[in-house]
Amino acid sequence: MGEETIRYEPAKRQSQLADLAYMCAEVRGVAQIAESLEPDEVVDLINQYLAFLIGILRRHGATLDRFTGDSIRAFWGAPESREDDYLRAVKCALALQAELPQFNRLVSPGGQHKVELAIALHAGEAVAGSLGWETSFNFTVVGEVLAVATHLGEKTRPGQTLITSPIHRKLKDQLKLHLLPFVELRGRSGPIAVFLLQGLAK
Amino acid sequence: MGEETIRYEPAKRQSQLADLAYMCAEVRGVAQIAESLEPDEVVDLINQYLAFLIGILRRHGATLDRFTGDSIRAFWGAPESREDDYLRAVKCALALQAELPQFNRLVSPGGQHKVELAIALHAGEAVAGSLGWETSFNFTVVGEVLAVATHLGEKTRPGQTLITSPIHRKLKDQLKLHLLPFVELRGRSGPIAVFLLQGLAK
Repeated sequence: MGEETIRYEPAKRQSQLADLAYMCAEVRGVAQIAESLEPDEVVDLINQYLAFLIGILRRHGATLDRFTGDSIRAFWGAPESREDDYLRAVKCALALQAELPQFNRLVSPGGQHKVELAIALHAGEAVAGSLGWETSFNFTVVGEVLAVATHLGEKTRPGQTLITSPIHRKLKDQLKLHLLPFVELRGRSGPIAVFLLQGLAK
Repeated sequence: MGEETIRYEPAKRQSQLADLAYMCAEVRGVAQIAESLEPDEVVDLINQYLAFLIGILRRHGATLDRFTGDSIRAFWGAPESREDDYLRAVKCALALQAELPQFNRLVSPGGQHKVELAIALHAGEAVAGSLGWETSFNFTVVGEVLAVATHLGEKTRPGQTLITSPIHRKLKDQLKLHLLPFVELRGRSGPIAVFLLQGLAK
């Protein structure tokens, strides 16, 4: 896996219907950190985490959708589409989970400011385009794919990566997965199948 | 209320502990719009809504936190603090709800692409500072205030504006409110008091 430039694209681009893998990575533990530190220390620490996590997304060819103090969203499949977009997303999730504990130890050797990631991956067709206002435009995604990934992210436990059926269908022979009980998501009429990602298949 | 510049601040600023009114405005109906239009039409329509809504936030002195295709978040109280920050937030919510139907009729005279707003307002102390990575920094908020507003936003019905106890305590004599049943929010240990905002007191 070579170095790739993250595609954070404020300029106005052509809108497109794309087959996307969408990642919602919730950073858990930030509020607890915020309670115990001075404002400058909180912001510096979160910025260290963001830089670290976004560096991993960059290595895996993600298009960064948005980040906040406690979540990062990214997708694969727009503005360019690649054959292995879904697999890149999965490998990125595994790398995020695998590398975060080392980073926690580095920035907080005593373990008092540990954060964890709850990652949800979903995939499907969505409209991608530049949304915004005046001079502030982000290349982002509209539609169901984003909503399902977001709502599944809310149900994901710290340290877990959950994937849904579209990714399972495409990659099941390449992944080590564990089928979980069906999950009800807000805004959806029925429960959906969810798999715990345990790694790549040997 | 005069014209004011919206404070969308990408540059790195001093972090601060601030008493904030935080607004989570979910735009409902976007996914349905996305299903029935071409990608370029979806993006253009959403950008029209965003420009309209952000224009109202600007008039009310909001600091824009972030926007996506289906939500806008903003706060009052940082980087500058004003005596009437909470009231400004409430008046902004009333204006958003009051003006949106007119805008819906303008962009979609047949009513086929109507969006609605579900607005949650919460208030309290939070760390505000520039979060980001490399050249992408946003002046934003970390902590419980944001989480409560976000989770309450999820429970808010289209067309409703809900407020919480800190705003009620400060403004109850100036607002027309209706106490709703207590609400359980994810990540909170107990139910919280929630009020439906019906307008300003006569």
